[in-house]
Amino acid sequence: MIKALFSAGDHVWPEYAQALPDAFHAKGLTIDLSRAHAPDTVDYIIAAPNGPVKDFSPYTSCKAVLNLWAGVEDIVSNETLTQPLARMVDPGLTDGMVEWVVGHALRHHLGMDAHILGQDGVWRTDFPPLAQERPVTILGLGALGAACAQMLATLGFPVTGWSRSQKTIQGVACLSGDAGLIDALSGAEIVVLLLPLTDATTNILNTKTLSLLANGAFIINPGRGPLIDDTALIAALEANIAHATLDVFRTEPLPQNHPFWKHPQVTVTPHIASTTRARTAAMCIAENIRRGEAGEPFLHLVDRAQGY
Amino acid sequence: MIKALFSAGDHVWPEYAQALPDAFHAKGLTIDLSRAHAPDTVDYIIAAPNGPVKDFSPYTSCKAVLNLWAGVEDIVSNETLTQPLARMVDPGLTDGMVEWVVGHALRHHLGMDAHILGQDGVWRTDFPPLAQERPVTILGLGALGAACAQMLATLGFPVTGWSRSQKTIQGVACLSGDAGLIDALSGAEIVVLLLPLTDATTNILNTKTLSLLANGAFIINPGRGPLIDDTALIAALEANIAHATLDVFRTEPLPQNHPFWKHPQVTVTPHIASTTRARTAAMCIAENIRRGEAGEPFLHLVDRAQGY
Repeated sequence: MIKALFSAGDHVWPEYAQALPDAFHAKGLTIDLSRAHAPDTVDYIIAAPNGPVKDFSPYTSCKAVLNLWAGVEDIVSNETLTQPLARMVDPGLTDGMVEWVVGHALRHHLGMDAHILGQDGVWRTDFPPLAQERPVTILGLGALGAACAQMLATLGFPVTGWSRSQKTIQGVACLSGDAGLIDALSGAEIVVLLLPLTDATTNILNTKTLSLLANGAFIINPGRGPLIDDTALIAALEANIAHATLDVFRTEPLPQNHPFWKHPQVTVTPHIASTTRARTAAMCIAENIRRGEAGEPFLHLVDRAQGY
Repeated sequence: MIKALFSAGDHVWPEYAQALPDAFHAKGLTIDLSRAHAPDTVDYIIAAPNGPVKDFSPYTSCKAVLNLWAGVEDIVSNETLTQPLARMVDPGLTDGMVEWVVGHALRHHLGMDAHILGQDGVWRTDFPPLAQERPVTILGLGALGAACAQMLATLGFPVTGWSRSQKTIQGVACLSGDAGLIDALSGAEIVVLLLPLTDATTNILNTKTLSLLANGAFIINPGRGPLIDDTALIAALEANIAHATLDVFRTEPLPQNHPFWKHPQVTVTPHIASTTRARTAAMCIAENIRRGEAGEPFLHLVDRAQGY
C-alpha cells in the first residue's frame, strides 16, 4: 500500500486526518497515512516547512515532497531535500486571498476608514473617483496575484501586473523585468504585493521604488514581510504614501512595541489574508499522489534555481 | 432648433453646462440648452426633483421630462407633470454603486472593522469563512441591484435577489412576491437594500422581517431611508443584527443627535454610496432626446401606476 507521511504541526493534524482520507477516497486512492512511518518505507511526504522532518535523506523511496502551504522559502534551501518538491495551490487559499485583496483595495479606494473611525455627526459628501480612474498595480502574477488582478479588473480598475518572467492575463497590462518594474510602479495609486520571497524580491519596495508611486498611494501586502524595507516605508508615509495595510512581517507575531501597530497610516492584520483550507488543500495533495502513481508529471513543481 | 430647459440646482449647472453640449454633439444633435426658455417653446425638460420647475403645465410643447437622478419618488406624484417621464440610468452611477456595495459587503464579510478600530498590538488569527459560505440577499433587482448581485456572485457569494416582479439573472437565485420575500430574507447573512421607495416598500425591513435574518447578520442600505423601520432596526441590533451600514435616511443630512451616529453597530455614511456623474448622465439624456427626435421610444420611462 502507498505510504504517506504527514509532517506538520500537531495543531493541524486533526483537520487533515479527516480531510486527506476523504480526498484520497475521492481520487480512488488507498493510502496508509501516518505521522510515524519508517523513513525508508515512505512514498510521499506531506510537509509543512516547520514540520518535524528536517532531514529528508533517510526517505530513500520517497517520490515527492508535497508542501502543505503556498510559500516554500523555508524548505527550498534544505539541502537534504533532493526529491521533487511541489507547492500547494489551494483553490480555497486563492478565493480567500481574492476576497481579502479586493476588500482592502475597495476599502482604500472608497475611503471607508474616515467613516468607520469618524462617526462624529458631520455630514461630509465627498465622492470617491470611480475604479476606472484608480490605477492598481500587482507585483507577482502567480496563482494568487493573477486571480486578484483579474477580479480587480472585473471591478473596473485599470490593472497593471508585474512578474519576473513575462505573463499574459486577459484585461491586465502585464510587465516584466527591471524596466517593467519602474513602469508598473510609476503613478500607481494602489500597490498589492504577492511576490514569492527570493533574494531578488527582498526589499523590492524601498526608498527608490516607493517614491515612484502616486501621491496618496495605498500599499497592500499580503505576500511576505521582507518584500518591503520597513524603514523606507515609515519614511514614505510622511511623503507620498497615504496608508499601508500589512498582513505579513519580518517577525510574526509582530512585536507589540513595533511602530507599525501605533502608526495611524498603517493597518496591521495578523497574517489572516488567506489560509490553506484543509478540505480543498487535501484535494491538491491527493491529485499529485494520483499523478505520481499513474506516472504522470506532478503539478506545481518548485524550480530550485528560481527558489519557487 | 430643439430647445432644452435645465431645471436643477445652481450647484450642478456648471458641470452640466459643459457635459450636456459635449453629449449632444456626440449624438449629432444641435440643441439650444438654457435655464430660462419661455415655457411654451421648450421641447425637453432636464429636471431634478428639487429643481425650479414645480408646475409643468405651461410646458405645452414638451415631449418628455428627463430626470437627472435615479430616484423619481419626489417628482412622480406631481400632478402637473403629464409628459412622459424618464428615469436616469447612468452607467457611472451603477459602477459607483457596485464598488460601494461590494466594498462594504467585503468589509463586513472579512470583519475589517476589528482591525481598523483595534490596532492594539494583540495578534488574533481568526479567519473569516469564504464568500461561498456567506449567503447574501439583495432586495431590488433594477439596474443597480442586478449589477451588485452579479458582481457579488462573481466574487463567490451565494446571492439571492428579490424584486416585486420576477426577474432572471444569471448566477443569482431570483425570488418575487410576498412568499419569496420571506424565503429571500430567511438565514441571509448580508442584506443589501436597493429597492425603489413606494408605499409597498416603505418599512420593508421591520420587526418581523428583520427577525428572519441569520444571527450576526449585516445590513447595507444604499437605497432609500424609509425602506427600514429605524426603531425596529435599533431593537434588532440587540438581537440578531450585528451591524448596519446606512447611507440614506428619512431626514438628510441625518441630524447630529440621531442615535445612529453614536451607535457602535451602525456606520452612517452621508449619501455617498454613488452619485450621478455628469459625463455619463449627459449621454443618457442625449440618447433620449435623439430617440424623441427620431420618433423612437424613450428609454427608462416611469410607470406612473407602479411609481417607478
